[in-house]
Amino acid sequence: MSVTYEYPRPALTVDCVVFGLDAEDLKVLLIQRGIEPFAGRWALPGGFVRVDESLEDAARRELREETGIGEVFLEQLYTIGTPGRDPRERVVTVAYYALVKLSDHTIRAATDARNAAWFAVDDAPPLAFDHDRILAMAHERLRGKVRYRPIGFELLPPKFTLRQLQHLYEAVLDRTLDKRNFRKKIIRMGILVDLDEIETDVAHRAARLYSFDKKKYDRMTRQGFNFEI
Amino acid sequence: MSVTYEYPRPALTVDCVVFGLDAEDLKVLLIQRGIEPFAGRWALPGGFVRVDESLEDAARRELREETGIGEVFLEQLYTIGTPGRDPRERVVTVAYYALVKLSDHTIRAATDARNAAWFAVDDAPPLAFDHDRILAMAHERLRGKVRYRPIGFELLPPKFTLRQLQHLYEAVLDRTLDKRNFRKKIIRMGILVDLDEIETDVAHRAARLYSFDKKKYDRMTRQGFNFEI
Repeated sequence: MSVTYEYPRPALTVDCVVFGLDAEDLKVLLIQRGIEPFAGRWALPGGFVRVDESLEDAARRELREETGIGEVFLEQLYTIGTPGRDPRERVVTVAYYALVKLSDHTIRAATDARNAAWFAVDDAPPLAFDHDRILAMAHERLRGKVRYRPIGFELLPPKFTLRQLQHLYEAVLDRTLDKRNFRKKIIRMGILVDLDEIETDVAHRAARLYSFDKKKYDRMTRQGFNFEI
Repeated sequence: MSVTYEYPRPALTVDCVVFGLDAEDLKVLLIQRGIEPFAGRWALPGGFVRVDESLEDAARRELREETGIGEVFLEQLYTIGTPGRDPRERVVTVAYYALVKLSDHTIRAATDARNAAWFAVDDAPPLAFDHDRILAMAHERLRGKVRYRPIGFELLPPKFTLRQLQHLYEAVLDRTLDKRNFRKKIIRMGILVDLDEIETDVAHRAARLYSFDKKKYDRMTRQGFNFEI
């Protein structure tokens, strides 16, 4: 199985930053390393790219092997190759990120990961390698993204309240938004349909229900906009 | 010098899409390959990453070696690793892109490149490997970028006319813009300073000169906006 090359080659890995949203906050999926280096430390799921698989397939395989999570829409984040970032040897990693509805994904640790778990992004433990930096880059990208593209279609139920939508933005942006201002802006964006229905079975005062106008939502996704919040 | 590894590894390269702007249109810097595969075909400058250099250093070195161009601000574009994209073996490439003022850069072919030259982007020859696709991705990124960030500071002279600025946008977007509409929007953006001067030594009617308000320009670069043109 061993191979000889004329010149030394960097090793190539993939790492995945999977963000999960629930009723409370923005979480990130981490695994606890079972092997050295950084044995026992938490890290992003990831691993070595096989010579015959695409980068995205490698990311998907590692995610499944280490956390049990299957279907997620991964976007490429950045490739990091700073010499010295891995104590073993030169390792270049292609980082991917995804945003999923937390309740859709049951996780279980497998292969060389001791453990897999969701952590609140702003309460994550110090990570192995330069994974803290990769996580920060992914969070920054996500925050940037919600300013140019609508979010929520894959994350909210088909009928939702403005409170739920605001919560989603607050979780991603990690700050409290002014309710009136948020509502004015999100409605002006023109992607919501007022269903003329209200919530049922809620303890608090029932709120109006909305859905996304998928056509307008998709157009906004293609065109982009600037949502100043 | 040869090295043995336990498992086969993809080779790792960098490729550079350097866009150049001149008075006419958007150009791209290409090299003519001197060696197989694709000997004689035009391609993006690039090559193998050394095991001890960062990805960006590798991109900069290859650019210098193959085209003689030294100082450019490279941004990472995307990493492409589709199996089969190189007929020799599995090669993963990290693509970078840059936008430079054409007149600042004299090029000369070197090392394994037979030739180096600027081509109009919409009149480029068919490229080696999947470089057509990488060029298209970079052009798309650049087009997207001008919708969210100001451009021109590094590309225009310190004092410029609105015609020059419009020309720059037209070259990047590859379409004609309505003059009145462009002027209205660019002025509303608030990054221009009217210098209360006019052009001298021009054959056509002398136009007003502007400069960028660097503070506002930088703020817009950080914050982003939506320039709908």
